[in-house]
Amino acid sequence: MASKIHETAIIGLDVVLGEGVKVGAFSVIEGKTEIGPDTEIGSHCHLGIEAALSKDETLEIGAGSLIRSHSIFYAGSRFGPNLVTGHRVTVRENTIAGDNLQIGTLCDIQGHCTVGSFVRLHSNVHIGQGSEIGDFVWIFPYVVLTNDPHPPSNELVGCKIGDYAAIATMAVVLPGVEIESGALIGASTIVRNDVPRDTICVGNPGKNIGPTEKIRLTGGSEPAYPWRRHFHRGYPDHIVSKWKSEFGE
Amino acid sequence: MASKIHETAIIGLDVVLGEGVKVGAFSVIEGKTEIGPDTEIGSHCHLGIEAALSKDETLEIGAGSLIRSHSIFYAGSRFGPNLVTGHRVTVRENTIAGDNLQIGTLCDIQGHCTVGSFVRLHSNVHIGQGSEIGDFVWIFPYVVLTNDPHPPSNELVGCKIGDYAAIATMAVVLPGVEIESGALIGASTIVRNDVPRDTICVGNPGKNIGPTEKIRLTGGSEPAYPWRRHFHRGYPDHIVSKWKSEFGE
Amino acid sequence: MASKIHETAIIGLDVVLGEGVKVGAFSVIEGKTEIGPDTEIGSHCHLGIEAALSKDETLEIGAGSLIRSHSIFYAGSRFGPNLVTGHRVTVRENTIAGDNLQIGTLCDIQGHCTVGSFVRLHSNVHIGQGSEIGDFVWIFPYVVLTNDPHPPSNELVGCKIGDYAAIATMAVVLPGVEIESGALIGASTIVRNDVPRDTICVGNPGKNIGPTEKIRLTGGSEPAYPWRRHFHRGYPDHIVSKWKSEFGE
Repeated sequence: MASKIHETAIIGLDVVLGEGVKVGAFSVIEGKTEIGPDTEIGSHCHLGIEAALSKDETLEIGAGSLIRSHSIFYAGSRFGPNLVTGHRVTVRENTIAGDNLQIGTLCDIQGHCTVGSFVRLHSNVHIGQGSEIGDFVWIFPYVVLTNDPHPPSNELVGCKIGDYAAIATMAVVLPGVEIESGALIGASTIVRNDVPRDTICVGNPGKNIGPTEKIRLTGGSEPAYPWRRHFHRGYPDHIVSKWKSEFGE
Repeated sequence: MASKIHETAIIGLDVVLGEGVKVGAFSVIEGKTEIGPDTEIGSHCHLGIEAALSKDETLEIGAGSLIRSHSIFYAGSRFGPNLVTGHRVTVRENTIAGDNLQIGTLCDIQGHCTVGSFVRLHSNVHIGQGSEIGDFVWIFPYVVLTNDPHPPSNELVGCKIGDYAAIATMAVVLPGVEIESGALIGASTIVRNDVPRDTICVGNPGKNIGPTEKIRLTGGSEPAYPWRRHFHRGYPDHIVSKWKSEFGE
Repeated sequence: MASKIHETAIIGLDVVLGEGVKVGAFSVIEGKTEIGPDTEIGSHCHLGIEAALSKDETLEIGAGSLIRSHSIFYAGSRFGPNLVTGHRVTVRENTIAGDNLQIGTLCDIQGHCTVGSFVRLHSNVHIGQGSEIGDFVWIFPYVVLTNDPHPPSNELVGCKIGDYAAIATMAVVLPGVEIESGALIGASTIVRNDVPRDTICVGNPGKNIGPTEKIRLTGGSEPAYPWRRHFHRGYPDHIVSKWKSEFGE
C-alpha cells in the first residue's frame, strides 16, 4: 500500500515513516518518531512530544498499528507490532510494551511502566508510573493502577499484574499490590492486598473470596475462568491452539 | 441563518449540510453524514468515521443541534433534533437516540445501544453496548453501564434504564440489570440486582432501601422525587404542563 | 524569548499575547483572551470560548504558564502565573484560581468555582460548580467533587476543601461537605460528612477514623502527614523554608 499523508498533517524532519503509513488530517508527528509499515494514524493526533526527561529519545510504533484520532504519544516509548488504540489516548514517555496491545479510548498511561503482549485496556484506564503488566491481561473501564502509598510522597511503588488477570470496571489497585496470574478483580473493588493466582477479589476493601474456577458462564456448566478456555475472539490461531491443547481440547 | 463553514474545515463530498449549519476550525466531516439545519459543530471534531461494521451507513444529526469541540461521531448512528454535547464526546456506530439528548464532556458511548428523548448524560459517562435507556433519564459523572457478566466473555447483556431514573456519580450498573422507572441510584453504588420502580438503591453492593418519595428537598417538606414534580429547567412548556397536571398543580 | 505562533494557529483580533508566548499547531485562541508572557500553548487547543453567560468576559492566563495540547478554556476564567496543565483539560467559565496551579490530563473543571495557589489536580479530576478549594490541596485521579444533593434539583451546594488536604483516587465528595485543612481522604471513599482538620476519612460510606499523624512513611518512623514536613518536590524555596521552620528544622 502506498503511503498517504494528509496534506494538512505536519511531519517533522527526523520522523521515519514505514511503507504504507497513513496519517490523518491535522495530525502532528515530531521528534525521532519511527512509525512501522502499514500503520494508520488518525486525525488530530500529536506524536513524539518531547518530555523534559526524554530528550532525543525515540518513539517507536510497530508495524500494522492503528492509532485513532486525537491521540497523544510522547517520545521515549516503544510498542511492538499491531498496536490498536481508541480515540484520545495519552501515553507518556518510557512506556515499553509488547505486541498486539489494545489501548481503549481515553486511556491515560503515565509512562515509566511495562506492558506485555496481547494486553487489552478498555476505555478510560489509568496506568500509574511503575506499573508492570504481564501478557494477556484485561483491564476494564475506569480502573486505576496507583503508585503512591502516602499521597503525596516521594515513594513510588507500582502495581504488578500477572498474565491473564482480569480487572473489572472501576476497581482501584493500591500501590505495590501484586495481582497474580489469572486472578479476577470484581467491579469497584479496592485492592489493598496481594491477590493469589486464579483467585477472586471483591469489595471495598477487597477480599479474596475463593478460586475463579467456581464461576460458571451464564446458563451453562462451563467454567467462566480461566477465560482463555472459552474466549478466543481476536487472538491469532497459534495462540488459540496452544490454549486448546492446555485444556485437552 | 446562512451556513458558515470555517475555511480550514474538511467536508466530504457525500456530506449533506442543512441550511444554517456552522462548522468550526480544523473539523473533519466525512462519509454519508447528514447534519440537520441550524446545527453548530465546534472545532477539532471528527464526524462520520466509518467503523468496520458500519460501512456505507449514514450518521444523522437532527436539526438545531450543538456538538462542542473535539467530539467524535461514527457513521451508523442517528440523533433526533436538539442534540447538545459537551466537549470531546465519543459516540460509536449504531447509537440510536431520540430528540433533545444531552451528552456531557468526555462521555463515551460505545454504540449498539438505544437512548430515549430528553436524556441527560453528565460528564464522563460510559454507556456499554447493548444498553437501553428510556426517556428523561439522568446519569451523572463517571457512571458506567457495563455489559459483560464474565469479563472477558462472548456474553453481552446490556443494562435497561427506565424513564425518569436518576443514577448518581460513580455508580456502576452490572450487566443485565434493569433499573425501573423513577428509581434513584446513590453515588458510588454498585447495582447488582434489578431496582424496582421509584426505589432507592445505595451501597457496595447496592441495596434497595425503600421508596424515593421519602427523600425531602433541603430545608423543606417538599418531596425530592419524583424530580419532575419540582425540577423543570430546560424542558419545554408542553412537557412541564403535563408534569404539573400529573401532580394536580 | 521571541513569540512563536505556529502558522496554522488562529488568533482572534482581541486576543492579547504577552512577550515570548508560543502557540502550537491547529490551536484556536479567541475572544478577549489575555495570555501572560513566556506562556506556552500546545497544539489543538481552543481558548477563550464564549459561554452563554460569559459574554464579553476575559480569559486570563498568568505568565510562565504551560497549557498542553487539546485543552479547552472558556472566557470568564482567571489563572495566576505558572499554571501548568496536562493534555485535554476542560475549564469552563468563572473558574478563579491562584498561582502555580497544576491541572492534570483530562480534568474537567465545571466553572463557577475558586481554586487556591499551588493546588495539584492529578488526571481526570472533576470539579463541580460551587467548589471552593484552598491552597496546597492535592486531588488524585478520578475524584469527583459534587454539588447537587438531590439530583436533579435546583439546589447547588459546592464542597469546600481546606489547605493541604489530600483526596486519594476515585473518592467522591458529596454536596456541601467540608474537608478541613490537612485532612486525608482514602481511595474510593464516599465522603458524606464533614472531615475535621488533620483527620483520616475512609470507606463507603466514609468514616473519620483518627488523626493523620498516626500514618508513618514506609520503612521508617517518620510521620507521613502533614505531608509538607517531608514532601517538597516542585515547591519554591521560600515556601519550603517556611514549612521547615514550622517543624523546627
